[in-house]
Amino acid sequence: MERNNLDSRLPVFIEAGVGARFSKLRFACLFFVMVSLCMDSSAQPPKRHLGHGPQDTWIWYPGDFEIWLANQMQNRRTDRGTFFPVFWKVDSHYPLIDFHKEFYLTEPEEVNIYVEGTYNVKFDGQPMEGTPKKITVPAGKHKINVKVFNQANVPAIYVSGKTIFSDASWLVTFEDKEWIDETGKTSDISATKWLNAGKWNFNDPTKPPSTFKLPIVPQFATSLAKSSNGKLVDFGKETFGFIKLHGIKGNGNITLYYGESKEEALSEKGAVTLDRLSFQQSTKKDSVMPLSKAFRYVNMVTDGTLQVDSVSMLYEYADVKENGSFKCSDEEINRIYDVAKYTFHLNTREFFIDGIKRDRWVWSGDAYQSYLMNYYLYFDNETVSRTLLALRGKDPVTGHINTIMDYTFYWFLGIYDYYLYTGDKTFITQFYPRMQSLMEYCLGRRNKDGLMEGLPGDWIFIDWADKLSKKGEVSFEQLLLCRSLETMALCAGIANEKSDANKYQQYAAELKAKLFTLYWNETKQALVHSRIDGKQTENVTRYSNMFSIFFDYFNQQQKEAVKKSVLLNDSIQKITTPYMRFYELEALCAMGEQTYVTQQMKDYWGGMLKLGATSFWEEYNPTKKGAEHLAMYGREFGKSLCHAWGASPIYLLGKYYIGVKPTSPGYAMYTVEPNLGGLQWIEGRVPTPNGAIAVHCSTKEMNITTAAGIGTLRFHSAVKPECKQTTIESKGGNLYELTMQGYKTYIVTYQAVH
Amino acid sequence: MERNNLDSRLPVFIEAGVGARFSKLRFACLFFVMVSLCMDSSAQPPKRHLGHGPQDTWIWYPGDFEIWLANQMQNRRTDRGTFFPVFWKVDSHYPLIDFHKEFYLTEPEEVNIYVEGTYNVKFDGQPMEGTPKKITVPAGKHKINVKVFNQANVPAIYVSGKTIFSDASWLVTFEDKEWIDETGKTSDISATKWLNAGKWNFNDPTKPPSTFKLPIVPQFATSLAKSSNGKLVDFGKETFGFIKLHGIKGNGNITLYYGESKEEALSEKGAVTLDRLSFQQSTKKDSVMPLSKAFRYVNMVTDGTLQVDSVSMLYEYADVKENGSFKCSDEEINRIYDVAKYTFHLNTREFFIDGIKRDRWVWSGDAYQSYLMNYYLYFDNETVSRTLLALRGKDPVTGHINTIMDYTFYWFLGIYDYYLYTGDKTFITQFYPRMQSLMEYCLGRRNKDGLMEGLPGDWIFIDWADKLSKKGEVSFEQLLLCRSLETMALCAGIANEKSDANKYQQYAAELKAKLFTLYWNETKQALVHSRIDGKQTENVTRYSNMFSIFFDYFNQQQKEAVKKSVLLNDSIQKITTPYMRFYELEALCAMGEQTYVTQQMKDYWGGMLKLGATSFWEEYNPTKKGAEHLAMYGREFGKSLCHAWGASPIYLLGKYYIGVKPTSPGYAMYTVEPNLGGLQWIEGRVPTPNGAIAVHCSTKEMNITTAAGIGTLRFHSAVKPECKQTTIESKGGNLYELTMQGYKTYIVTYQAVH
Repeated sequence: MERNNLDSRLPVFIEAGVGARFSKLRFACLFFVMVSLCMDSSAQPPKRHLGHGPQDTWIWYPGDFEIWLANQMQNRRTDRGTFFPVFWKVDSHYPLIDFHKEFYLTEPEEVNIYVEGTYNVKFDGQPMEGTPKKITVPAGKHKINVKVFNQANVPAIYVSGKTIFSDASWLVTFEDKEWIDETGKTSDISATKWLNAGKWNFNDPTKPPSTFKLPIVPQFATSLAKSSNGKLVDFGKETFGFIKLHGIKGNGNITLYYGESKEEALSEKGAVTLDRLSFQQSTKKDSVMPLSKAFRYVNMVTDGTLQVDSVSMLYEYADVKENGSFKCSDEEINRIYDVAKYTFHLNTREFFIDGIKRDRWVWSGDAYQSYLMNYYLYFDNETVSRTLLALRGKDPVTGHINTIMDYTFYWFLGIYDYYLYTGDKTFITQFYPRMQSLMEYCLGRRNKDGLMEGLPGDWIFIDWADKLSKKGEVSFEQLLLCRSLETMALCAGIANEKSDANKYQQYAAELKAKLFTLYWNETKQALVHSRIDGKQTENVTRYSNMFSIFFDYFNQQQKEAVKKSVLLNDSIQKITTPYMRFYELEALCAMGEQTYVTQQMKDYWGGMLKLGATSFWEEYNPTKKGAEHLAMYGREFGKSLCHAWGASPIYLLGKYYIGVKPTSPGYAMYTVEPNLGGLQWIEGRVPTPNGAIAVHCSTKEMNITTAAGIGTLRFHSAVKPECKQTTIESKGGNLYELTMQGYKTYIVTYQAVH
Repeated sequence: MERNNLDSRLPVFIEAGVGARFSKLRFACLFFVMVSLCMDSSAQPPKRHLGHGPQDTWIWYPGDFEIWLANQMQNRRTDRGTFFPVFWKVDSHYPLIDFHKEFYLTEPEEVNIYVEGTYNVKFDGQPMEGTPKKITVPAGKHKINVKVFNQANVPAIYVSGKTIFSDASWLVTFEDKEWIDETGKTSDISATKWLNAGKWNFNDPTKPPSTFKLPIVPQFATSLAKSSNGKLVDFGKETFGFIKLHGIKGNGNITLYYGESKEEALSEKGAVTLDRLSFQQSTKKDSVMPLSKAFRYVNMVTDGTLQVDSVSMLYEYADVKENGSFKCSDEEINRIYDVAKYTFHLNTREFFIDGIKRDRWVWSGDAYQSYLMNYYLYFDNETVSRTLLALRGKDPVTGHINTIMDYTFYWFLGIYDYYLYTGDKTFITQFYPRMQSLMEYCLGRRNKDGLMEGLPGDWIFIDWADKLSKKGEVSFEQLLLCRSLETMALCAGIANEKSDANKYQQYAAELKAKLFTLYWNETKQALVHSRIDGKQTENVTRYSNMFSIFFDYFNQQQKEAVKKSVLLNDSIQKITTPYMRFYELEALCAMGEQTYVTQQMKDYWGGMLKLGATSFWEEYNPTKKGAEHLAMYGREFGKSLCHAWGASPIYLLGKYYIGVKPTSPGYAMYTVEPNLGGLQWIEGRVPTPNGAIAVHCSTKEMNITTAAGIGTLRFHSAVKPECKQTTIESKGGNLYELTMQGYKTYIVTYQAVH
């Protein structure tokens, strides 16, 4: 199907790509390029944008489907058979939306219109009678508006013609302010704010957004055994889906006790999730549970005359593609990477969630780590932006994201990274107002010293750790606010809000200076944990110190000092969650301590594997024993054994071993700094908006195939390195650099220093 | 059913009432008294409120059902068969709500729980398994929470036990912020804002709020005639409902053209509303149209072999009670009053709407007049508060109410009157934050001189009038802002926001002073219409001058001057809408010109009746002829012939002839100042929160039966008046006053001066 001039150019660009494996990424890339084109022609008013994407698709007000879907997701948790929703404000889609676009046609065409909701169609400003499903548009310049009301689901449209079709270039608003005066004259609507429509991958007109479900596939148990009170079904590893009972017959009740561990499934009083069913079946019948659940084991307890032939499951999963990879000479690390991937995949669903047993909610601090892992595994940026939008909700801001102060800040940090990895300016410009109102909410809650401390209703989380003080002005919160302000300055610039950009930049600089004057302790050579009543406390924790390393807030001397005084100092309270181990190990990697980190990974993640983990946990304290590992929150089986934040090796190995990271938005420029971390060889692929960068590195040779953009390979070599494809520059000592062009292969012979 | 001590006292109070006719009002009164008791015990935290209303009822987050229902209503308009929704932002209910209440039981009781949505129940803070429908509550102090998710409809609950039942004393929030720490300890939720639940009259557990429909009753046509292309059905007068076709048989299409006038129904191209249907019926079938419509006439055009036996309708109406009345010696005025009542009833629906043909929307300026009429006819205050809540919607404020600057201000004025007439403090305290954010939106849009002028996206309406200038700083808008600020000061005081109260009082005083320095023209003896570029224009219009009279902004000398220079000056542009005639005649009444107003009413409203009106119109210009009266907005039948703002005689006759008005909130004090306006006798009833005040007044005798509260009867008499029930005080000249106690009858003999 030929569409228009812009469209017909696209295949040429696609041909320039890196092969069929990344077709999804290429589309993402094309869309980004086109949006950039639109953004650059900023002298034009938005309604002049006549360019469009390569695909008819369902569209909506941006952010609205995301919020609506999150409401479904966040209200699906049960605990012991009881509905267990979130405790913060949830928002809704706008029920009434106007969609429009202008077109120029060289010949008439037929256009089909599909709508979720009650709607009207205006053609060149004039309403058409009824609810047209097919219209014929004559040649020339024309404008189509579709206005949709839908209270229960998100107003959405799908328009499909040869050159006229719905995509993200359509403009939308929730208030068109189009009134008429007493003579019938229409108001000037130039003040209406129009945004580009939101979309995802709903490319089938018969499958509108409200019908979205994750895909499922049948899976079968690996073993079935008698338990003391029923039958214990083992699916062999942590998994997620809908239990299906086959051949139910007789009268009575069935209770299914789900367990991530055998102990949990066998505990009628302790299992966190369960299903209770009643049957009066004279002939055999199958039954699928209404809600998907996390489990490895299911203990099925029946009474009366009930009999069940067998138990299987419908595995439910997000259809994301693995575009990144990692492999190395150490089989234990490879297993850790594979289990991390599986853990991450289970927790990558409609959104990036925390854990599949509980809470199954979208938590900003947890999601922030998932974004980073995603950039090294899926590069599925729609899951990132969808999660960011779900977390943010709408104005007015009445509390911190998830009620947690640090989680509000991680939201800003997530946007910073999202822009750096993807270069998606449209997201920033469209949602800048939501960033701004959230930041103003935070700034409005600073105390007289300009610092954030917990006010009633604020949760200061930081980490799950024994007796961690949340009192007074915690340094970690100021640090995250500072980084958030830097993000705001960046985004205000992109959104062309110059005075905001200056303001936030100034606030950030002031706060950064305060961090050191107020929290740096020269004797301790560290940032202290907090101030109470205007005085430094004696307490030093790892949090603000390790973040200051990879935020690059410390100078080199401070970094070295903190490495000794905090990071490698066993008298500082140890971290027992993979959540904060993520940042702890990142800080060490950022200082080149990969060899140490390799051992830490083997001890910590390898430690879980040795205990039989098939996915990584919410918390792991090596000093605990047996079933102690299953308890948390004062509950015997309170802990989640499959938590997204357990999957951080994906990120560490991709960013600090394979060593690929963007240095300008969307990988226009990037660096590759392979680090063997004591391993014999490592290899992997890191996805970018325009293909993946493939790296193989041994102690003697590096083989790198690039994607788009300009890369810098930076490495140490004990001998003078060689590369046939380009010149290597010596940077002094044993440090070397070479510049890599797009879509080429570079082979460097060298001698690893580590 | 005996409930608790407080409840068992209630019947005594009811017995003290004024008879069975006002049972509804008495309940309203009782509720108000109880809420007041609750409000007064403000030293107690809200959760200690153990009092409750007299009735189990469905409850929800206050304002949410109102917004949800308005969304249904505002998205039901069609124009020529095309969906025609509003053009401003519409909001939604909160999809996730926590309801709770604490109870003290002397003995155990069974409690039934009905819920609209997915829910859980917590008993004394502990979740109960599943979704309990019936629970047994043991004796003692207990707390019940019900948490409900519902995206499509409003989360609502109905709880029914002997002493435990859902009513407005339950507390609700959309963010309970109830998290747990790593030990399982629950957060301090003291910072959560809890409001009293919203309710209406959904007192049947099997009929939840989402199923609400206005009642219907069959009605029949008065005549059926052949039209040139079909059959013209006449229902005898303006009406509203669902057309029902009886005995449809054959194959073909039916088009129904609706007409408020015969001309409209007969105009296939001009009828504003229509229905198109297709049938293939071998046996006879009835069919009811899906949407209710306004019409007197329906022209039914069929093709093919289609035959229809007959046409009837299902009249759809709001079930409000007439608690006020008016009758006098002039039969034309009585007819005007009756047609005004019918007009008002047709436009009193789920909300107070503008007109039943179009727009069928909730417009703040139109509704404001309906509130005032309501206080003299129904005293159905739930329709007032429901309309106010629907208009306000939710934060953030992104535009003026209905996009119209003056309509934002009328919203504040409506609250002022609502409080004055009903004394409902709970409404003010619960919704003060929404008042405040709307006012701050307005204040944020003032120009450098502190005045409001239209910014892009603002509609300055004022009135439908030829060539009315909206440019610059219009005096009328400043006047309305000033009154709105006075309302804010009052409400801030009630909401205990002392510094806000001072701030708004000061703003109001400053603006009032400015009104006179900037707009008063000594030569013209009037406020001019506007300032442009900082200079007074030459234009004098009626609007700000007449409002300044009944706002009491003018001194007596200015009032008299303005009466001559503006109100009774034919060279000032005449008003052609009943909308502004409402205020024009009110200003004249406020100055004692009732006799002149009587003639005006007879000319203007009588003029419409002489033209065959069966309901009052959106606009009436006596200089127009024939079908010219039907046109508006550049459309042949664009005008609405049944517009709420046409019904103002209800208000004028009640407030300025019967002469009853509250002088302190909720009629705790009030005045009665009968004014015959040149009529021989007048009589009527004016509803108050505690019964109606009945007045009969001839030129020689006044007979007044009071309701609760302390009344002042004020009148002029040419002779010394007499009253056996109490002492009459002479106020100098021929002015007299007497004080009236609650629920008594006073008979005064006197001699009317006019």
